[in-house]
Amino acid sequence: MGDRGCRGPGPILPGLSKVSIVGASGYVGGELLRLLLGHPFVKVAQVTSERHAGLPVGRVHPNLRRRTSLAFCSVAELNQCDLLFLCLPHGEAMRRIDGLLPLARHIVDLSADFRLRDAAAYQRWYGLTHPRPHLLEEFVYGIPELHRDELRGARLIAGAGCNATATILALYPLFAAGVVDPSRTVVEVKVGSSESGAGASAASHHPERQHSVRSYRPTGHRHIAEIIQELTTDSPVEIHFSATSIDLVRGVLATAHVFLTEELDEREIWRLYRAAWGDEPFIRIVKERDGHFRYPEPKLLWGTNGCDIGFERDRGSRRLVVMSALDNLGKGAAGQAVQAMNVACGWPETAGLEFTGLHPV
Amino acid sequence: MGDRGCRGPGPILPGLSKVSIVGASGYVGGELLRLLLGHPFVKVAQVTSERHAGLPVGRVHPNLRRRTSLAFCSVAELNQCDLLFLCLPHGEAMRRIDGLLPLARHIVDLSADFRLRDAAAYQRWYGLTHPRPHLLEEFVYGIPELHRDELRGARLIAGAGCNATATILALYPLFAAGVVDPSRTVVEVKVGSSESGAGASAASHHPERQHSVRSYRPTGHRHIAEIIQELTTDSPVEIHFSATSIDLVRGVLATAHVFLTEELDEREIWRLYRAAWGDEPFIRIVKERDGHFRYPEPKLLWGTNGCDIGFERDRGSRRLVVMSALDNLGKGAAGQAVQAMNVACGWPETAGLEFTGLHPV
Amino acid sequence: MGDRGCRGPGPILPGLSKVSIVGASGYVGGELLRLLLGHPFVKVAQVTSERHAGLPVGRVHPNLRRRTSLAFCSVAELNQCDLLFLCLPHGEAMRRIDGLLPLARHIVDLSADFRLRDAAAYQRWYGLTHPRPHLLEEFVYGIPELHRDELRGARLIAGAGCNATATILALYPLFAAGVVDPSRTVVEVKVGSSESGAGASAASHHPERQHSVRSYRPTGHRHIAEIIQELTTDSPVEIHFSATSIDLVRGVLATAHVFLTEELDEREIWRLYRAAWGDEPFIRIVKERDGHFRYPEPKLLWGTNGCDIGFERDRGSRRLVVMSALDNLGKGAAGQAVQAMNVACGWPETAGLEFTGLHPV
Amino acid sequence: MGDRGCRGPGPILPGLSKVSIVGASGYVGGELLRLLLGHPFVKVAQVTSERHAGLPVGRVHPNLRRRTSLAFCSVAELNQCDLLFLCLPHGEAMRRIDGLLPLARHIVDLSADFRLRDAAAYQRWYGLTHPRPHLLEEFVYGIPELHRDELRGARLIAGAGCNATATILALYPLFAAGVVDPSRTVVEVKVGSSESGAGASAASHHPERQHSVRSYRPTGHRHIAEIIQELTTDSPVEIHFSATSIDLVRGVLATAHVFLTEELDEREIWRLYRAAWGDEPFIRIVKERDGHFRYPEPKLLWGTNGCDIGFERDRGSRRLVVMSALDNLGKGAAGQAVQAMNVACGWPETAGLEFTGLHPV
Repeated sequence: MGDRGCRGPGPILPGLSKVSIVGASGYVGGELLRLLLGHPFVKVAQVTSERHAGLPVGRVHPNLRRRTSLAFCSVAELNQCDLLFLCLPHGEAMRRIDGLLPLARHIVDLSADFRLRDAAAYQRWYGLTHPRPHLLEEFVYGIPELHRDELRGARLIAGAGCNATATILALYPLFAAGVVDPSRTVVEVKVGSSESGAGASAASHHPERQHSVRSYRPTGHRHIAEIIQELTTDSPVEIHFSATSIDLVRGVLATAHVFLTEELDEREIWRLYRAAWGDEPFIRIVKERDGHFRYPEPKLLWGTNGCDIGFERDRGSRRLVVMSALDNLGKGAAGQAVQAMNVACGWPETAGLEFTGLHPV
Repeated sequence: MGDRGCRGPGPILPGLSKVSIVGASGYVGGELLRLLLGHPFVKVAQVTSERHAGLPVGRVHPNLRRRTSLAFCSVAELNQCDLLFLCLPHGEAMRRIDGLLPLARHIVDLSADFRLRDAAAYQRWYGLTHPRPHLLEEFVYGIPELHRDELRGARLIAGAGCNATATILALYPLFAAGVVDPSRTVVEVKVGSSESGAGASAASHHPERQHSVRSYRPTGHRHIAEIIQELTTDSPVEIHFSATSIDLVRGVLATAHVFLTEELDEREIWRLYRAAWGDEPFIRIVKERDGHFRYPEPKLLWGTNGCDIGFERDRGSRRLVVMSALDNLGKGAAGQAVQAMNVACGWPETAGLEFTGLHPV
Repeated sequence: MGDRGCRGPGPILPGLSKVSIVGASGYVGGELLRLLLGHPFVKVAQVTSERHAGLPVGRVHPNLRRRTSLAFCSVAELNQCDLLFLCLPHGEAMRRIDGLLPLARHIVDLSADFRLRDAAAYQRWYGLTHPRPHLLEEFVYGIPELHRDELRGARLIAGAGCNATATILALYPLFAAGVVDPSRTVVEVKVGSSESGAGASAASHHPERQHSVRSYRPTGHRHIAEIIQELTTDSPVEIHFSATSIDLVRGVLATAHVFLTEELDEREIWRLYRAAWGDEPFIRIVKERDGHFRYPEPKLLWGTNGCDIGFERDRGSRRLVVMSALDNLGKGAAGQAVQAMNVACGWPETAGLEFTGLHPV
Repeated sequence: MGDRGCRGPGPILPGLSKVSIVGASGYVGGELLRLLLGHPFVKVAQVTSERHAGLPVGRVHPNLRRRTSLAFCSVAELNQCDLLFLCLPHGEAMRRIDGLLPLARHIVDLSADFRLRDAAAYQRWYGLTHPRPHLLEEFVYGIPELHRDELRGARLIAGAGCNATATILALYPLFAAGVVDPSRTVVEVKVGSSESGAGASAASHHPERQHSVRSYRPTGHRHIAEIIQELTTDSPVEIHFSATSIDLVRGVLATAHVFLTEELDEREIWRLYRAAWGDEPFIRIVKERDGHFRYPEPKLLWGTNGCDIGFERDRGSRRLVVMSALDNLGKGAAGQAVQAMNVACGWPETAGLEFTGLHPV
């Protein structure tokens, strides 16, 4: 290195894997950088940002002031590394993938560009013809709880969407067990403002955005495609999905209304969730009889890779309400990418992800 | 008057109707008092609070400092008046109604005690035997948009629930037109903290409550009873309802997912809503192509009696998403009670309710 | 009218004064429009916005949807009117004043352009040579509590700054009475995000701005010039002023630390404030022994023209802490401009300004 | 152990120090527990709470669910340990200290009970006669940046107050250098709601507390005593201190207005701060020319032990404005207590305190 505008963090320690981040000035890139700087098995080699090339990362991510001497460099200056994370806007990674593939043994793409196995789905949900459809089957969808075996040693990993992760983890045990009507599920996610990224707009101007309860995507949300892909087993799945922005920076709460095909009581539901997620290090079943934290709350998960899941049976009908919470930048993006990396590299799955969220907050 | 602890606001002007409020120290009572103090046709005679008897109202409702010299008195000191508003906790009004009936020509009860026409429904939803079932049919359910004719001259009025009002106004045009599957509707309301009233609790402690996205009633919400009552025409109606608390003081956003029984496009939906609500002074259809206020937002309605309604058709299914916003203390309680009073007394329906919400806020 | 892009609100009623607003698409312009639409003695004739010319005002100020059929027009289309309000960015009004003067009998400028009587002060505080210095002595500084007599019939009025109004109303009784050290006062204002106007920026992006406690102007705030001008009597005045942005849309709380030159107790301070502000319709002295609203709180004043003032004597020193709260768009801008108009036109001073703030909120 | 209601976290690992927390159900106790559970050199043995004895800690601190199997026990069940942290209400530790002293080699008290060296100061500021005045000189005031040498091996440590820590770290370099008028300093702290602890009250009820900018202690704040104690060198020090609650859960921003006795420019001020704090692992000087994080912001420090300090010279006077930010539960309480423990025990000072705050948040 030593090139203009790209001061590195010093020599790589022996034994540490070299990782670099493409597009490290956004919110997902910044969160990833924070996590990787504290990860015991990696060394951050380079972080790119065309707009901020040459600037110390602390100028863009003020929480990292004095934590690192890294400065942004241009993607053109990227060297070989062991793992390369791509935090580019949707549509960019698919355009550049050919040039990036030779740079690293493992690539984790955090955009939507390689999440769907079916190229035709890109046409339907993203309105574009995928330029590298043959790569789609090589990418492993990056939810370790569902694809742990495929992730081991995986070369190409597609990070899952934040709302998709919340919904899939909430519903997978039920769909896999075949106990719900696959076409009646209604999901409503309540999301914070960081989901829209670091770019300011009239809609994100504080006086406009504070206190908003804004139906920003009542229908047609693109994460539906991933959710359907991951929840489908035999019968075709329909997910009736809406997203509402609320006055929060980080956090997703998904509330899923599913309709059971058999009369299961809460104990039986518990059993399904325990069987599916009981051993998962990042999933907690949260369901208490009293207190005010009876069910999942996203704020308790800020900065963590956790996903909390709870549920309640409607006594008057076959409805089961499942709630799941996570930090959209954590388990919904950067945290889960690190978890997937850990699996891919054979490291302890929780390495670098030990932060226990805050309370009160 | 001049009685102990109950300073009145001076002589009643000729022509003004005398109104009193029982239980005026809570949030609904305070909002009602604010509205009635600015109402052109009434004079507030007495406001009761057992706990604060003798105290000037400004000590409890700091926004009313210097706006009135009224002090709280005990309910035992109540004099005759023209209209009596009851803002008591649920269960209290039904217990005390016999003593209150002789005090006024009109009574508007803002609790849930007389909302349901069917006494058996109280058993089911509130777990109690209604002590005065014969009065239930005399009370008019206080949504003027649905019961304007019955409200004219009505002696007994039952104020509607806040979440119920938001849901009913959102769905009535569709259910009345018979274009939706009556058993598939899922409604999720996002509500502010003032819905739980003025009493502090561990759950409402600021460090616990700020940033919360709290599934406080995923199933079994009592407002379902009113909603079903008001939306039922021929076929039995099922409403799959959940309520989530968010970090807001005032405001409700109801998101309703209904499933159409016929292929209606957005223009046809528009027509149904315009036919139903086009002339209503307090309902706006909010649905714009661009901007960030494309759909209803509760914050724009703080302090008003307005209800904004919007909708979006899901192109991939028969789902229609309807959003409605209101201020739970305004159109969801005190505002609507004043509107109902205006109708009952033959006054202009908007009298005292002219406040145009704020922006930005 | 009837010209393209400038639909008027219909014929002016006889007896109503015609008012127009230049620059009506910003936050101050929008608040002013809201107030004027509800004002009993005026009729809004035209509202200008170059950027939004042709658009109905409800598209920019969503709270005004269906309240008016007005659309923005260009300033070039302005007709004669009785009163013209200028809500232009600082520096614009002084450049355009010659063209605007002939349009109306009264002009109320809400920018800083004509607040200072001394042209040299513009050089010092705003870094510019005032192009129309001769007009400065014609403009009356628009705080009615201080300049009521000069405002009666005034042709040119300069609306006061929001932080300046809060500070001046807090300190005037003390400075006028000559009981404080004129050079030791420290003032710290806590302000909401709407003070910076309607233009989005990286700093106002919701994820960046939420939760901020941001020292945006520790020294050198331009409002100091007005404050000194209005508080100076004999001896030169120094105001050590800092401004901090907090997580609020509307509202200012000024905390002023003054040092008494004589040993006054709280009762004597009360007397000074009562003598100065006791009869003012928009000022309340707020100082209670218990409860949590013992002192002024800006949120209680949202949407109003009120200013609440409180104080506490430090027993260990000669310090007196004075707190004052207001809504920066209300008493800090649009509300006070309407109040000044009312005085100038000989109307009741509270006309159009009756809104009693909300609680809870 | 194995005693009723006091499940321990398993056998203590060889080499780990045993720590226990008295009063672990409050906010400071919970934060301390979170930090100690992740600390590499300690093992949490017992945590007490009379009210919650027998309950798993996750029921009170929901962020710690599944992180530990610890349950609260009664203080009567406390065993010997290496370090004992006291998180009792003010006044409690001094009453119980005799019984607690024999339990551990090191005691860190986080209340105010042993912060002041002068017993008479307790009379003046806390209105009580200190029952154990002879212990006051044994306790080391727990700001490592000021008392590192005394803390090494210290047996008794008094954790510093949150507002006091923010103020002292902001001002110490200036007072120590003797460059400020020691009697003119005005300090205003803006604080979050967690400072008042975990107990709900009418004042902390969410609808009352949200949006508040509340002058809760304009004069007479008890932390003044510590601040004066720590800043006094030769001449007597006066601190004119006010505290305002704002709509934040965690965080303090202190804004100090000091008056220089000599004409120092910003470069010279920089030098003083660098000399004093340049090598401190937890203090950053934050002062940038552009961007919106030019100065300290508490939100960037949530969950950390950091303190950010910035300043700006007033060109028009001798005033220097110094801003400092910290998390009142972090560097303001639990974090600093862990830092002091690290120094006392000879461990790396940053052990267990590595968390890099979040952005955005």
